[in-house]
Amino acid sequence: MSVTPDPSSLVSAAASGDRRALARLISILEDRREGHDALLPLAFRAAVPSHRIGITGSPGAGKSTLTDGLINIIRAAGEPVAVLAVDPTSPFSGGAVLGDRVRMQDHVLDDGVYIRSMASRGHLGGLSAGAPKALLALETAAFPIVIVETVGVGQDEVEIAAAADTVIVVVTPGWGDGVQAAKAGVLEIGDVFVVNKADRPGADEAVADLRAMLALGTRSDWEPPIIQTVATKGAGIDEVWKAIETHREHLGPDGLDAVRRERRRAELETALVEILRERASAMAKSGGDVVGAVEAGDLDPWTGAGTLAGE
Amino acid sequence: MSVTPDPSSLVSAAASGDRRALARLISILEDRREGHDALLPLAFRAAVPSHRIGITGSPGAGKSTLTDGLINIIRAAGEPVAVLAVDPTSPFSGGAVLGDRVRMQDHVLDDGVYIRSMASRGHLGGLSAGAPKALLALETAAFPIVIVETVGVGQDEVEIAAAADTVIVVVTPGWGDGVQAAKAGVLEIGDVFVVNKADRPGADEAVADLRAMLALGTRSDWEPPIIQTVATKGAGIDEVWKAIETHREHLGPDGLDAVRRERRRAELETALVEILRERASAMAKSGGDVVGAVEAGDLDPWTGAGTLAGE
Repeated sequence: MSVTPDPSSLVSAAASGDRRALARLISILEDRREGHDALLPLAFRAAVPSHRIGITGSPGAGKSTLTDGLINIIRAAGEPVAVLAVDPTSPFSGGAVLGDRVRMQDHVLDDGVYIRSMASRGHLGGLSAGAPKALLALETAAFPIVIVETVGVGQDEVEIAAAADTVIVVVTPGWGDGVQAAKAGVLEIGDVFVVNKADRPGADEAVADLRAMLALGTRSDWEPPIIQTVATKGAGIDEVWKAIETHREHLGPDGLDAVRRERRRAELETALVEILRERASAMAKSGGDVVGAVEAGDLDPWTGAGTLAGE
Repeated sequence: MSVTPDPSSLVSAAASGDRRALARLISILEDRREGHDALLPLAFRAAVPSHRIGITGSPGAGKSTLTDGLINIIRAAGEPVAVLAVDPTSPFSGGAVLGDRVRMQDHVLDDGVYIRSMASRGHLGGLSAGAPKALLALETAAFPIVIVETVGVGQDEVEIAAAADTVIVVVTPGWGDGVQAAKAGVLEIGDVFVVNKADRPGADEAVADLRAMLALGTRSDWEPPIIQTVATKGAGIDEVWKAIETHREHLGPDGLDAVRRERRRAELETALVEILRERASAMAKSGGDVVGAVEAGDLDPWTGAGTLAGE
C-alpha cells in the first residue's frame, strides 16, 4: 500500500515526537510487518526506559476510569504519558459505552497524551510477543510514564501487566471479587491494590478480604497498600498516584534495575518462543508422515511432536 | 505424597468408570506430573471421541447457567456428560455467587455428570497445552458428550472453546456486547449464538446486531442460528440443544472428520510449542553471554533470541 520507510528515519521521527511515525512503528513491530527485524534493534538503541505502570482487574472494575484519572494527575504535573490498552472492554481500545468514550475525547487534543489500543487477539506471535514491542516503541518516543491496561483474565494479559515496574490490581466490592482475584493469580503481582466503586456496599469487606489474603502470601519487604476509590468521581485517585510514587521510591535504582533485568530475561524467553513457535508451525504444516498420522488420529499429537522436535 | 500408579492400570481404571482414577489422570496430564509422558499415548489409545461442545462468552453472560440447563437435557436423555470449566468466573470452577453454587450441587450425586474445573493460570506449558490433555482424559473415560466452558476474553480461552465440534457463543443484551464479541474474535468461531438474559431490554437489538455482523463475514454453508434464552428460567435451552444437534447433523461424518483432523493438527502444533518453549526457557535461564547482555540491557531481546536459536 504505502512505501516502506527507511528504518532509521522512522525511528528518528518517532523519537523526535512525530506521532504518526510512532503509530507506524508500533504497527510494524506488533504485527511483524515488513521492516520489523531491522526496526527492533534500532528502536531498542533509541529507547529511554519509562516508568511502566500496569493496571489489571476484571472487566467492568473501572480500570479505564482509573487510568483516565491518573492521566489527569500526570498531565497536571506537566509530564507526557502514554497508554497501551490491551483490554477488550476498555474505552481506550474501543469497547466502551458512550459516556466513557466521550470522556476519553478529552485527551485527543492533548499532544502530551498518547493512547494506543491493542487487540487481544489476532497478532502474529501472540499478544505476549506483540505487547513488549509496542512498549519498546513508546520508550523510543521517550514517554517518561507508560500505563499498560489489561483485563486480568487471560494468562497473557495478566503477564503483560505483571511485567510493569509498578502493578495496580483493581477490584470492586461484592461478587466475591477478592476470591476471583486470588484465583486469577493477580494477588501475587499487585504492588498497589485498588477497591474501586467503594461507594457500593461491601467495600470495607473487600479491603478486609484482600488484606487477609495478602497476609497469607509470602511477600517481599513491600506491603501493598489497599486504596478505596470512586474513580468516576475522582475520589481516591490522588492516593493511588501517591502509592505508585511511593512504590517507585521503595524500589529505588537497585530494585528498578532488578525488575528490569527480570523483564528483559522474560522478553528474551518470549522472543525465543516466538521464533520456535514459527518453526513448530512450519513443521506442523509441512505435511509428512508424522503430521499425516496425527491428523488421521493414528498417532497422538504429543508423541508426534516429540518425533518432529527430534526428541 | 502418594505412590505413582502403574500407567496402564490408571488408564484402565479411568476407562472403566473409576472417577477417582479419572481425576488423577487429568491432574497428572494437565500439570505434567510424574507419569505424564507414559500416560499420554496410553490414554490416547483408550480414548473414544466425544462430541465436544464449546461454550464461550464474556464474564457474567450466563455460560454456566446455560451449561447447567444443557446438562439437565442431556441427563434426561440418559447420556453421561462431562464438563471442563476453564472460566475463572464459572460456578463450576469455583468463582460463583452462592445461588449458583447451590444449583451446581444438584449434580454432585449424579454419577452420570462429571465436572472438572481447570485454573486459567499456573499450568506448566500453559492453558492451551493443558486443556487438550484434560479433554483427552475425559474421552478416555468415554464420555459421549463433553462441554468445555471458557471465558471469551483471553486468546487461549477462546481457542480452547473454538477447538470444539460445535461452538456456542453467549452474549447478553445491552452494553454493546455484540461489538465486544466481534472485537474478541468470537464471531468467526460461533456455530450457535445465544442471546441470554433475553428478558432484559435490548435483546432483539442484540439479535439484529449479531445477524448484521454475521452477514458481513464470509461463512461456510452453515448459517449460525441466534437463539434468545433466559437461562435462569430454563427458557430457550431446548432450542439451544436442538441447534447443537442440528449443527452436528449438518457436519455429518465428513465434516466432523475435517474438524477433528484440524484439531489434531493444532494439538500437534501446541505440543511442539510446548517442547520448544521448554527449550527456550532452559536457554534463557542458562546464563551465558547472550542472556547476560540482554539482562543488562546491552543487547535487545529479539536479536539475543535469534542468536540463541541459531538464526
